[in-house]
Amino acid sequence: MLGRLNHVAIAVPDLAKAAALYRDTLGARVSAPQALPEHGVTVVFVELGNTKVEFLEPLGEGSPIAAFLARNPDGGMHHICYEVDDIVAARDRLKAGGARVLGDGEPKTGAHGKPVLFLHPKDFTGTLVELEQV
Amino acid sequence: MLGRLNHVAIAVPDLAKAAALYRDTLGARVSAPQALPEHGVTVVFVELGNTKVEFLEPLGEGSPIAAFLARNPDGGMHHICYEVDDIVAARDRLKAGGARVLGDGEPKTGAHGKPVLFLHPKDFTGTLVELEQV
Repeated sequence: MLGRLNHVAIAVPDLAKAAALYRDTLGARVSAPQALPEHGVTVVFVELGNTKVEFLEPLGEGSPIAAFLARNPDGGMHHICYEVDDIVAARDRLKAGGARVLGDGEPKTGAHGKPVLFLHPKDFTGTLVELEQV
Repeated sequence: MLGRLNHVAIAVPDLAKAAALYRDTLGARVSAPQALPEHGVTVVFVELGNTKVEFLEPLGEGSPIAAFLARNPDGGMHHICYEVDDIVAARDRLKAGGARVLGDGEPKTGAHGKPVLFLHPKDFTGTLVELEQV
């Protein structure tokens, strides 16, 4: 069921600083910032050859990462995203196993324009897990 | 300089439970547990096609992940490991940029038998970063 690791998301207080660190100091390929007001974040992607790191900075009021950054003012790893072929089948299998799906349990359109779901960290080794249908 | 994402490490209080979750519920390929007494952890790898998740459980007294699990009793993402071609050149470039290398700054032999270094989370977006020479 579980496919590739699509990305690791790191929430940061200063996206420009994180992008400069990865581009200039670590020598990585870093995308231009992309504002996603409907998700309450601005994102930058670091291309690592086999997968991506996604930096997230809060955008606007009530950003979903504001509370995380209040607890982790330097930033930190926020979630991990796995690819699945069929997100509804994956959800139903996980729910049958007792796992909790966040929100209303229906897939939403994620930052990459594809259906995504988030799973409860308490059911996944203390880690917020995103599933993305590819 | 920065190569592939080698693995994302997740510290867990119960390795068998994490392995069963990923193998049975998520349908992933999970390795047998491997005790690494010299690193104070037992590890299990989840093969994701393009990269790996490494689960870490404390082993013995004074495990380097004991404090992390005391703060995160359900577990959580512990570090991210990037591949580099030349770890000494990478270290010197990072130090010249003001980044702090943990320990005595010399590469150690990591869990995969290759030279590794850890970088200070305060200098890397609140995230513990491991570099592994491949």
